[in-house]
Amino acid sequence: MTTGDALVIFTPSGKRGRFALGTPVLTAARQLGVDLDSVCGGRGICSKCQVAPAFGDFPKHGVTVTEGALSPWNTVEERYDRVRGLPAGRRLGCQAQVLADVVIDVPPESQVHRQVVRKRAEAREITLDPATRLVVVDVAEPDMHEPSGDFERLAAALKAQWGEEGVTAPLPVLAKLQPALRKGNWQVTVALHRGHRDAAARVLDVWPGFHDGGLYGLAIDLGSTTVAAHLTRLDTGEVVASGGVMNPQIRFGEDLMSRVSYAMMNPGGDAEMTAEVRRALDGLALSLATEAGVAPRDVVEAVVVCNPVMHHLLLGIDPVELGQAPFALATSGSLELDARDVGLVSVNPAARAYVLPCIAGHVGADAAAVALSEAPETATDCVLIADVGTNAEILLGRGGRVLACSSPTGPAFEGAQISSGQRAAPGAIERVEIDPVTKDPRFRVIGCDLWSDDPGFAAATASTGVTGICGSGIIEVVAEMRMAGIVDASGLIGSDVQVGSPRMVPQGRTWAYVLHDGRGAGGPLVTVTQGDIRAIQLAKSALYAGARLLMDEMGVDRVDRVVLAGAFGAHISPKHAMVLGMIPDVPLARVMSAGNAAGTGARIALLNRGARAQIEATVGRIEKIETAIEPRFQEHFVAANAIPHAVDGFPELARVVTLPDVAFGAGSGEGRRRRR
Amino acid sequence: MTTGDALVIFTPSGKRGRFALGTPVLTAARQLGVDLDSVCGGRGICSKCQVAPAFGDFPKHGVTVTEGALSPWNTVEERYDRVRGLPAGRRLGCQAQVLADVVIDVPPESQVHRQVVRKRAEAREITLDPATRLVVVDVAEPDMHEPSGDFERLAAALKAQWGEEGVTAPLPVLAKLQPALRKGNWQVTVALHRGHRDAAARVLDVWPGFHDGGLYGLAIDLGSTTVAAHLTRLDTGEVVASGGVMNPQIRFGEDLMSRVSYAMMNPGGDAEMTAEVRRALDGLALSLATEAGVAPRDVVEAVVVCNPVMHHLLLGIDPVELGQAPFALATSGSLELDARDVGLVSVNPAARAYVLPCIAGHVGADAAAVALSEAPETATDCVLIADVGTNAEILLGRGGRVLACSSPTGPAFEGAQISSGQRAAPGAIERVEIDPVTKDPRFRVIGCDLWSDDPGFAAATASTGVTGICGSGIIEVVAEMRMAGIVDASGLIGSDVQVGSPRMVPQGRTWAYVLHDGRGAGGPLVTVTQGDIRAIQLAKSALYAGARLLMDEMGVDRVDRVVLAGAFGAHISPKHAMVLGMIPDVPLARVMSAGNAAGTGARIALLNRGARAQIEATVGRIEKIETAIEPRFQEHFVAANAIPHAVDGFPELARVVTLPDVAFGAGSGEGRRRRR
Repeated sequence: MTTGDALVIFTPSGKRGRFALGTPVLTAARQLGVDLDSVCGGRGICSKCQVAPAFGDFPKHGVTVTEGALSPWNTVEERYDRVRGLPAGRRLGCQAQVLADVVIDVPPESQVHRQVVRKRAEAREITLDPATRLVVVDVAEPDMHEPSGDFERLAAALKAQWGEEGVTAPLPVLAKLQPALRKGNWQVTVALHRGHRDAAARVLDVWPGFHDGGLYGLAIDLGSTTVAAHLTRLDTGEVVASGGVMNPQIRFGEDLMSRVSYAMMNPGGDAEMTAEVRRALDGLALSLATEAGVAPRDVVEAVVVCNPVMHHLLLGIDPVELGQAPFALATSGSLELDARDVGLVSVNPAARAYVLPCIAGHVGADAAAVALSEAPETATDCVLIADVGTNAEILLGRGGRVLACSSPTGPAFEGAQISSGQRAAPGAIERVEIDPVTKDPRFRVIGCDLWSDDPGFAAATASTGVTGICGSGIIEVVAEMRMAGIVDASGLIGSDVQVGSPRMVPQGRTWAYVLHDGRGAGGPLVTVTQGDIRAIQLAKSALYAGARLLMDEMGVDRVDRVVLAGAFGAHISPKHAMVLGMIPDVPLARVMSAGNAAGTGARIALLNRGARAQIEATVGRIEKIETAIEPRFQEHFVAANAIPHAVDGFPELARVVTLPDVAFGAGSGEGRRRRR
Repeated sequence: MTTGDALVIFTPSGKRGRFALGTPVLTAARQLGVDLDSVCGGRGICSKCQVAPAFGDFPKHGVTVTEGALSPWNTVEERYDRVRGLPAGRRLGCQAQVLADVVIDVPPESQVHRQVVRKRAEAREITLDPATRLVVVDVAEPDMHEPSGDFERLAAALKAQWGEEGVTAPLPVLAKLQPALRKGNWQVTVALHRGHRDAAARVLDVWPGFHDGGLYGLAIDLGSTTVAAHLTRLDTGEVVASGGVMNPQIRFGEDLMSRVSYAMMNPGGDAEMTAEVRRALDGLALSLATEAGVAPRDVVEAVVVCNPVMHHLLLGIDPVELGQAPFALATSGSLELDARDVGLVSVNPAARAYVLPCIAGHVGADAAAVALSEAPETATDCVLIADVGTNAEILLGRGGRVLACSSPTGPAFEGAQISSGQRAAPGAIERVEIDPVTKDPRFRVIGCDLWSDDPGFAAATASTGVTGICGSGIIEVVAEMRMAGIVDASGLIGSDVQVGSPRMVPQGRTWAYVLHDGRGAGGPLVTVTQGDIRAIQLAKSALYAGARLLMDEMGVDRVDRVVLAGAFGAHISPKHAMVLGMIPDVPLARVMSAGNAAGTGARIALLNRGARAQIEATVGRIEKIETAIEPRFQEHFVAANAIPHAVDGFPELARVVTLPDVAFGAGSGEGRRRRR
């Protein structure tokens, strides 16, 4: 035995303390509260506690560290290095013992609460602190003289070895416990779940011995059109699979209100829709797990964000009240549930689900997730955040104050109710330029990088053809028509156009602009009609009026920054949006896409339970403005109908920042579908 | 407005205080902590707060009460009296206001925590304090300016009006909430559940306006042979229906160990048995509700007691570990579950289930329930409590100390493995007397009050015949055979019998005693064979040895009292039990039946949540003795094999106390079936 003590300094935390010689580094770290991971609790199995001792003079710390400051490699480290490889300079913190003053660096991957890097500087950082973690525990064997249940001895061991008091277990775990304990020779790995509101942890699963898999969670963005999810490893934040499926409820109605109507008109209609969406959710979960090679049993959590109607339909609540004033939610608070209760039956049977709170009857958990991702409550400038779909959810943050509203933009921005409109899919026109002199267009379609006037475009698009105009395309074409003088400030087509131009065809009592004539090749005639312009005018007026209403309420007449969230926001051209008057004027460089911010918010809530408490508190403080009952909304709406911008253009277009986060179904056309 | 104040004295509590004139009696009671019921919270709807004011001189209290001490009947009371009738002298506590000094009696039926009368003086009293109660609440209407969910406003109202903070609700309740609130014009009745370990209450159900039904719970005694239940009104303790069904697991094995074997031998066998017993439980629940005219939705709780094997099979846990040393339970603690998780799917979808703790691998939640009913931890004398079935669970209490063990008595006491044995059913012999001189028997069968030598016996039993011997009958006949000298002290038949007696027939190398020869009438020949005597000797030795083992451990060589629990205990003759040497010698008057004490324990836990905490604490303190590893058990077992008592008899037989509690299936043959 060695005697005496030594100074141990941990970096980067700077935490330091004196410890008896022979103390394992992991023990010293725990006693100092240094963030050093361990699943096996110091049994030399998991290797999560790797540290990097530093040697030499450290005048900053006032110590000199000699080579013998830590005990030599022991058999556990040697075996680990032989079998799995220990990087140079690394030691297992549970094996290396302190023999003299030492400086020990904890590398990021050995920290439990390390940060997940986000690509955007202004975005909230994600610190890993998931609700569920794996721990290894040694359980006392049964004793006939002191009979107690295997679970009660497991609970006692979790208290003694991990400080977890009052742990509970649901029936599926109790059913697995006895064989696991015996197979593991009284050592098991358990998945311990403790939500941010839980007084005690619960065991979600148990494996014999050391379970070397990870635990996974699903960040689910349940949209009216698409159900999208990220399968994420909880202890690293790594997204191992992403994907989306169509929301099968579409057959009950394209938009939310038609689904509410379906529920009102058809007894049991809501239950039908609930069953459909739950089935889709479960199928998606299973296919992502399969794709990533993750055992469904290892999927132990889900976080769901969605709009209020989807929220109610997922939970099995009739959404009828959301279709009429006062738009009362059955429940607005966040929910912690068994995942199976929302239909996730293919994942771990004890898996938990967390549903973010809703902000108001029209501003759902998806908007709360956007707020979690974009943190408007922390904005020092004035930031406008819009998540545009059939409804636009709008947040305005300034100096700690956050306002929210929802504005009924309708489906035009999604390409619906547009004569040549279509969903974003290969073949859909997404970029448009119109020559102000010739009035001739050029365009690009999804799935092809060439412009329509580039050589080889026809060949490159032969498989898809040119099929219609998607949401971002319709915005560009209308804005370009305005800039080219084809449309006047009131939105009228043809007032400034020489009748007889081959680009203009009569349509009823007005004109339509021919964007593409594919009829010769068996394709469609793609035109923009007066009705299309009117639909876009209604949609953009609604979005703009919502933003203005919040600005009035905040007492500002300009914003410093616009963040466009959602898949739509990732594809929209800020220049054209501003030409249209969709968003308040701000320098183009101050318009940015947050990518799928709702999905990002779901990931944050999945990876950090503190974020759940945080967004619940934020939602409680957000001031909700109901557009339906604000007379000024109507005024702004009418005033915003015009398309005032002329042809002077926006030279900064090239500087628009679009930094997508992890994209849903990246690389496939599917991923570009609109979210709601 | 009146001014000043007056003295209000409540009886029987004696609580008193001064209140401003005009204070409603209910308000005064609440402020003083007087136990005065109210479901509607003072809205004049529920009439639970009826009180009886007393008038005249009360020198004991130092007051004189005038007729005008309370406000005159108001319209609410008049209407209530007209519609439903208010008993003479009664007032509604929420309507009557204090105008002068007054003495107010709270009748028992107006107390929340009133006691349920038990028939046995030594038994623990049951004070009503169920985990689930009904309350009426007025909820704020939704406001678009302050959007919040209907549930969040319900929770706020429950806090303001009932002091219940942090109430939660499961999905089925959230799905019902919106229509209920609107139909009830923002007044609803909710079923609030708060278990003894819960930090906050949960809403189990919601009804529009005032819901005038009661809430009900099931006290379930899940035996290996019979599943029995009492459907009980939670706010009165009234048992509205009782019944039992055969445990369908019997087809997998008559006794527990054969079911454990089935699970071991057949993959999925445990799941099969789990599904069967859950189905039976749910069917019983539904049939009891139907019989009592109770809406299944009003059944909101269940308490389950059972032996460890049934416990595991109900919970979906493979019982294989219970079939081998060290007999480790998967879990020994009590469980609070959703009732649907143990298959109770026909009752309220949010109903809760409480499963009592197990004492040890052989001493289950049923023994814990017996302890809850019989309170051995409070015994000032030395009390031996035995619940006899295929296993006998034995408790010994003295001076606050309680010992427990289980003894493998086998199925002989249930009439199984007895040549003419049968279950307790009409036609089974249950009472026997043998003339010591002639060796002739007389007997009674279940379903007929006549003795076999009474005139009219044949006619009275014509429909059932005489079919065999039930458990209590086999004990009587063996004891009578011993007293008549047909059997000697070693258990041998015929050593003292004149060969050639018509009552004795050769059977292999030994003799059998003919109890009844029904062959002439197409019935069976009912005999007692040497094998039967041996089976009973083994069974009674096991019971006696278990009791002796506990007495050794307690350091006593006699007990003051014997309590026989279970249906078997209710039918057994203490005299014959003592002749056989089943139980230690005590005066016959000190042998009593506790009826179905396990079922009573379940009822207590159902009606009083404090009792749940109490039995959990008691079980933690009970000292468990494992008979399988105690060498002295084997010694006692061998020593107990003889049947020492001679023919001197027990004249006190007539004084045996049998006070059955509520009997299962009272009045039908079914109710007399053995429990395990």
